[in-house]
Formats: sequence, structure tokens, C-alpha cells
Amino acid sequence: MPTTQPHIVIIGGGFGGLYAAQHLKHAPAQISLLDRRNFHLFQPLLYQVATGGLSPANISAPLRAILKTQKNTSVLLAEVVDINPQARTLSFRDGESLSYDYLIVSTGASHNYFGNAHWEKHAPGLKTIEDATEIRRRVLLAFEAAERESDPILRQAWLRFVVIGGGPTGVELAGALAEIAHETLKDNFRKINPADAEILLIEAGERILAPYAPELSEKARLALEKLGARVKLKTAVTDIQAGQITLKYQEQSEELKTQTILWGAGVQASPLGKVLAQGTGVELDRAGRVKVEPDLSLPGHPEIFVIGDLACLIQDGKQVPGVAPAAMQAGKYVARLLQQKIHNPQVKSTPFHYLDKGSMATIGRSLAVVQVGKLQFSGLLAWLMWLFIHILYLVEFTNRLMVLMQWGWNYLSRNRSARLITGETKLPFNADVVVPVSELSPRV
Amino acid sequence: MPTTQPHIVIIGGGFGGLYAAQHLKHAPAQISLLDRRNFHLFQPLLYQVATGGLSPANISAPLRAILKTQKNTSVLLAEVVDINPQARTLSFRDGESLSYDYLIVSTGASHNYFGNAHWEKHAPGLKTIEDATEIRRRVLLAFEAAERESDPILRQAWLRFVVIGGGPTGVELAGALAEIAHETLKDNFRKINPADAEILLIEAGERILAPYAPELSEKARLALEKLGARVKLKTAVTDIQAGQITLKYQEQSEELKTQTILWGAGVQASPLGKVLAQGTGVELDRAGRVKVEPDLSLPGHPEIFVIGDLACLIQDGKQVPGVAPAAMQAGKYVARLLQQKIHNPQVKSTPFHYLDKGSMATIGRSLAVVQVGKLQFSGLLAWLMWLFIHILYLVEFTNRLMVLMQWGWNYLSRNRSARLITGETKLPFNADVVVPVSELSPRV
Repeated sequence: MPTTQPHIVIIGGGFGGLYAAQHLKHAPAQISLLDRRNFHLFQPLLYQVATGGLSPANISAPLRAILKTQKNTSVLLAEVVDINPQARTLSFRDGESLSYDYLIVSTGASHNYFGNAHWEKHAPGLKTIEDATEIRRRVLLAFEAAERESDPILRQAWLRFVVIGGGPTGVELAGALAEIAHETLKDNFRKINPADAEILLIEAGERILAPYAPELSEKARLALEKLGARVKLKTAVTDIQAGQITLKYQEQSEELKTQTILWGAGVQASPLGKVLAQGTGVELDRAGRVKVEPDLSLPGHPEIFVIGDLACLIQDGKQVPGVAPAAMQAGKYVARLLQQKIHNPQVKSTPFHYLDKGSMATIGRSLAVVQVGKLQFSGLLAWLMWLFIHILYLVEFTNRLMVLMQWGWNYLSRNRSARLITGETKLPFNADVVVPVSELSPRV
Repeated sequence: MPTTQPHIVIIGGGFGGLYAAQHLKHAPAQISLLDRRNFHLFQPLLYQVATGGLSPANISAPLRAILKTQKNTSVLLAEVVDINPQARTLSFRDGESLSYDYLIVSTGASHNYFGNAHWEKHAPGLKTIEDATEIRRRVLLAFEAAERESDPILRQAWLRFVVIGGGPTGVELAGALAEIAHETLKDNFRKINPADAEILLIEAGERILAPYAPELSEKARLALEKLGARVKLKTAVTDIQAGQITLKYQEQSEELKTQTILWGAGVQASPLGKVLAQGTGVELDRAGRVKVEPDLSLPGHPEIFVIGDLACLIQDGKQVPGVAPAAMQAGKYVARLLQQKIHNPQVKSTPFHYLDKGSMATIGRSLAVVQVGKLQFSGLLAWLMWLFIHILYLVEFTNRLMVLMQWGWNYLSRNRSARLITGETKLPFNADVVVPVSELSPRV
């Protein structure tokens, strides 16, 4: 038995890293949880912040507060830029380093622009709190700019919102935008009717929510159309420029003027995947995910584990999906395995097994689709299930009460109170668009 | 009678401008409310956002949402940079212009660094939502940096918080900081004890909360000291540099290392005051406020009114204070006067009379001071009065329920859930401060 306790370092305070830390509560080890941010983010509700329904603090909880009673665990605000598996050390951006005995890498993924990195500034994705407030800013500013715009073509460009990617994020964003246009902003403007907004959801595949049963995809599409969004299937994005997007449907190209493009497509694993590959020679998949052993360890490095969206693991012929439940299960699994290893370093691990408890996506007020194995739900029942499950997960943090109250309030009042345009907004909205005097004053 | 309705333009959606707009609801006029932001900000609670107790959206309400049923009123997101009183037109930053028949200028005030503008970047003030999240970021980062700092001198600099100015803002900030250090962050750290934080409130005068009775000032000082803050009276700030402040107490200079300096002193009127002075020759006071007529109009321009913090009006030998109730009363007064003028342009106005309903400042949980005429309250009773009044004012917006719930929750749990470090934070915290490796790992 070692006389000092082993040092377990966890990089990333998302679902995987945080659950690993929490399940190491009684481990005879020193645990360091590193994150660039001081809070855990409940990412499944990020679209609610992007669309003004919840405040950032409603879906975030300080990591220190969550772990304050867990005496074997330190939280450090730090950004890891390098990993040296031979020396078992990490390097931080500020030049400092840290040694470990066991390492859990759980740094997730961000957007993938498929080689078109220059699209990002015109079509922001949704992964961080800052992404969410930036999207909120753009969406709300677009309605403000439309109100001040007299040219009908330019005004329509401000009122056209294009969401790219028919996965859960794209569907949730499109649904929330439709609700904003048709309900939240009703009567808020004098020159425009927010309901004239055109909300387009672009999906390259044959249906939205592809992992779901085809009937649910179709129900989701119909629900979106009913809310006032338009779904364009089999449609690819071929170009994005300031104020303009080019789409391709069958062999036909279409150019659309739009001031608001949101990116909900593609996943690019955290750059620490590449760092691990360079340091150990492990393989990465096309999205940059690390191909791990069945026990989530790195090939040749039983002391390093990769979990969550950064990991690539094939189970029963299918890739374990990049969703919160998979990351949580992996965090819990690795925590247990490590405790066994601390007692007996030679222990033989049983493979990680992801249990798919089902998938759910919400489309709008009272509308969701849920699939549990072969069971399918949609409509109000599915929405209540979605609500219940999300509240249940939030229960472990301090925000459950506030979120529930805020939702109840939003639901009853059909309001979204967090509609703040914050951050740097230089007026005019866009140098290309000039608002004529004549349209501004009611009298001139 | 004119055949078209007069156009009343209100610049600024703070307490003065918003109340003016609301009290013009039934006026036979077209009203345009202009603001650079899309929301009304409940500024008296801004310090709660700066200290992580409330979210920005809790104390903000979209101007459009507040005024959506008021059909004679348009809200425009616009920044006014020039006023031409002869032509009766305004110019926006984006080059557009707008004409008016009556103008209400209510653009408030910001910080005054008394000729030391370069202090601002080291000692941010608290006037906007962005100021509040920036202060929150600095305060929370300071504790994070202290946790990673091994040099005791440098660590103490991170744990030293200097608040400048013993007015309500300074007192509220110092009290909230003391609560954060002693209650909120308890057990959150492993290397530092947040209660070791040193919170200094610097006041150049003989007592804090100078407009209050001396007994209340003393009670507030004692309450702050009891919470764990230190109050330095008769102490002037003579210099501020990165990581350092110089104070002067009776001919003695003292240099203090500190990474967090907050500015709660001084008021500088909005630059539109100067614009009005250049256009009309009216006088400004030392803080840049516009000297107005007893009916709040501009001398020589009965169609222009200046209200709120931007106005300088002497009443009964004393200046009407720059507080929310004064701005609200002025807004209501001008709205009524304008309705009379629309009916009869020759109407003779009765002077504006500010009714001082009392002052209140909160120091911490269950601690406040209240002065109503000669009546004085302090302690829990005063705090409950403070709470009641603030909830009452918020009642007019949609956030009352959420704020009440959030406060109730914070009060019971002694928690502050909005403790997010958002925005651009480049690690390391400060290039001057290097964290030695040896302190980071529990084992190295």
C-alpha cells in the first residue's frame, strides 16, 4: 500500500468530469478538478439562455459550491494546454504544471464548421454561456434593426433567421425562435409585426432528429411548422458570408439574405484529443475524438481515461453518443474503477456499458418528442416528461427552485424575461444598412 | 388646435424617462422613447448583480415589454449624439436624425474620476449591467487567484478589496463583499480561507452616508465592521495603479497592494448636458448637470425638459438629489405639464416640487438604515422596510416574483447562486503574478 494517497486529476467540470469527481467522494485519494470556468454548465438548457427564457445563472452552478463538502477534492481554475503521459504531468496556459497518478480527460467538444472556420463569425454556435448571450444579442438586435429599417428587402433580411442543423440544438433553437416571433414579442413593435419573421431550419439529411424513429422526426417537423418555422430537408449549406447564406437543394443553388445565422451542426472534439494523440500515438476519429479501450482508458496508458464527448467508443456496433447521460455514466464508471485500482492496481476491469435510457428533444411550449427504446411519445405528455427529467437532473444543483419558478412564470405569462441585449453593441447595427430619416419619426 | 399630434421625444429609459413615458399614456401625442439599451435597469439593485446575488435579467425589464400596450408610444434603440434646439432635431450616432416638438432629456450620469480618467480601468464603477458583471468577474477571480497563489504577500493582495466612496453604492458593495467572504464562500476553497479577505471602505469625508443623520452613519459603520469590513474615514485616494492604491490620511501616505478596487465615488452627468449647453448657452454645474428652470425646462426653451440625474435644480436651498424617486417624480411632473401644454400652449406652469419620502441604504442580510424626515430606523426593521419598498417598486415590472424568490432562496440558503465568471478571462489572471508549481498539486 502506498503511504501517500494517489493524486487523481480531472480535466473539465462538465457532466463527465463532475460526476467522476462526485463519485470519488469516498476514495482514498487527492482529487483535483480543473476547469477554465468556475462553474458547471447545464448544457441541455443552453438554448433557453440563447432565447431569453432563462438567465445564465439559472443553468450554471459554481463548481466550488457543488463540491464544497467534498474534502478530498480541490477545484482549480486553470486551462490545460499540454499533457505529458511519460512524466505524468500537465501544463497550464500560464506556464505552470501539475503532476498526476491518474488522469481523467473530460473536456468535451465544440462546433465543427467542416473546414469553413471563417463561417463562425457569421454563424455562431451554441456551446458556452458567452455563445448563448451572443446569440440572444443577435436575435433581439435583429428585431430592433428591422423596426428601424424602411427598405422592405433589408427589413426582411433582419427578420429572416436561419438555423443550421436538424439535431436537438437546431430543433430547440428553431422552436424557441418561432415562439419568440409569434408569442413573446407580440405587440412589442410599432412598424414591424414580429410574426412576419421567417425561421428556417436547414438539415442536410432526409429528416430532422435523425437518431429518433422516423415517425417522431416527422412529428417534430410538423410541430415546428405549426409553430411557424420552416424545415428545409436535404438542403446543404454551401456558403456563408456577412448578411447572406447559400443553400443547395438537389442541384439547385439558392442565395438568401439574412442577418442572423445560427450554427447547430457538427461536433469537433476538444484540442486535448490531439494533444493526447501526439503524446501517446492513440488514434482519433474524424471528429477528433480519442479511440479508447472498452474500460475508457487510453490504449497503453491504463492510468489515463477519456470520457464524455471527447471519447470515441463503439458499443454493439454503434458509437456511444455524445450526450449528457453517456458522460455521466462514464464519469461514474471511471470513478468506481479507480477506487478498485487504488486498492488493487492489478484489478481487471469490466468494460464500460452505456445504458441508453432514451432521448428527448423539446420543440416548444408543451411540445416535445421522447423515445425510450421502442416506445415513442410526443406532444404534451412528452413535454412534461422532458420537463420532469430536466428538473430532476438540476436537482443536484442549487438552481432547481429558481428554474422551476422561472419556467412556471414564463409558461403562464408566455413571457421571456431575460431579453437583454448585453455586451458590446455598436450602433448602427450594421454599416451596410442605413435607416432613412423619414421612417423614424411618426411625424416627419 | 393642431391637426397632427405633437411628437414628444424622450431620451433615456431610466426612471425619469420611463415614468415620463408611462404618464403620457393618455396624452394626445406621439411619443418616442429612445435608449441605447433595450431594457430599463433597476439601478438600486445593481450591486446585487455585482456581488452574485441576482442575475442581470432579475433587475432589468425590456422597455418594449413594459410599454407594449401603450399604443401612442414607440421605443427606438438609438444613441443620441447631438441636439439642435433651433431646428428641433436630434442626431443619432448612426447619422440618422429625428425631429421633435417637445423633448425630455433623461440620460442620467456616470462615474466621476475627478480628472483621473486613467484610474477607471483599475477601479471600475457601477452604473451598467456590464459594469456589474465585470465587478463580479473581478471579485470572484480574485479569490480563485488567491487559491492558486503561494506567496503570502501576493495572496493577500488578491484577498484585499478596496471600495472607494462611502455613499450608498460603496456601503452596499462593501457589505455584500464582507458577506461573500464570510458566508457565501465558506468551505469553498482548500488553501485559502475566504474570511481572511480584507474589505476596506474608503471615505474622504468624516462619515459614511453623509446625507443621513450622524447616528445612522455611525450605525452603518458599526454594522459594516461587524460584518467584517473596515471603514477608513477622512481618507483620500491620491493614486491608483495596476495592483496598487495610495491613500492619504491626515498628512500620511499609505500604499496598499490590492488587485481589486471598486469605484463608488463621484457623479459625472451624461455628455448630452454639454451638448445642450453648447446649443443653447445654458449653464452646467461642476458635475456637468444642466441648470434648469423651476419647471425643469431649459432656460429659453420651454419645449425642452431635463430630468433625473442630468438636471441641477436647487429647491429650498438644497440640490434635488440624484436618486430614483426624484427622477420618477420629475418624469411624472413633466408628463402632466406637457399634457396641459398640448391643450393650452400658453399655460403657466407651477414649479416642480421634489418630495423627499426618505432614504434607505442596505448594509447586509437583515441590516439597513432608513431615514424618513426626522425618523430613523436601523437593523432588521429597516432592512424589511428596504426590502418591502424595493419589491414594491419592482412590482411595476415583470420580475418581482423572481427577485422575491431569488432573495428568499439566497436568504435562507445564505447562498449567492449567480457567481459566474463570464466574459473574457485570459488565464493566467495577471502576468505579474506567477503561481509556483509546488503549490498546485497536493502531492508535489
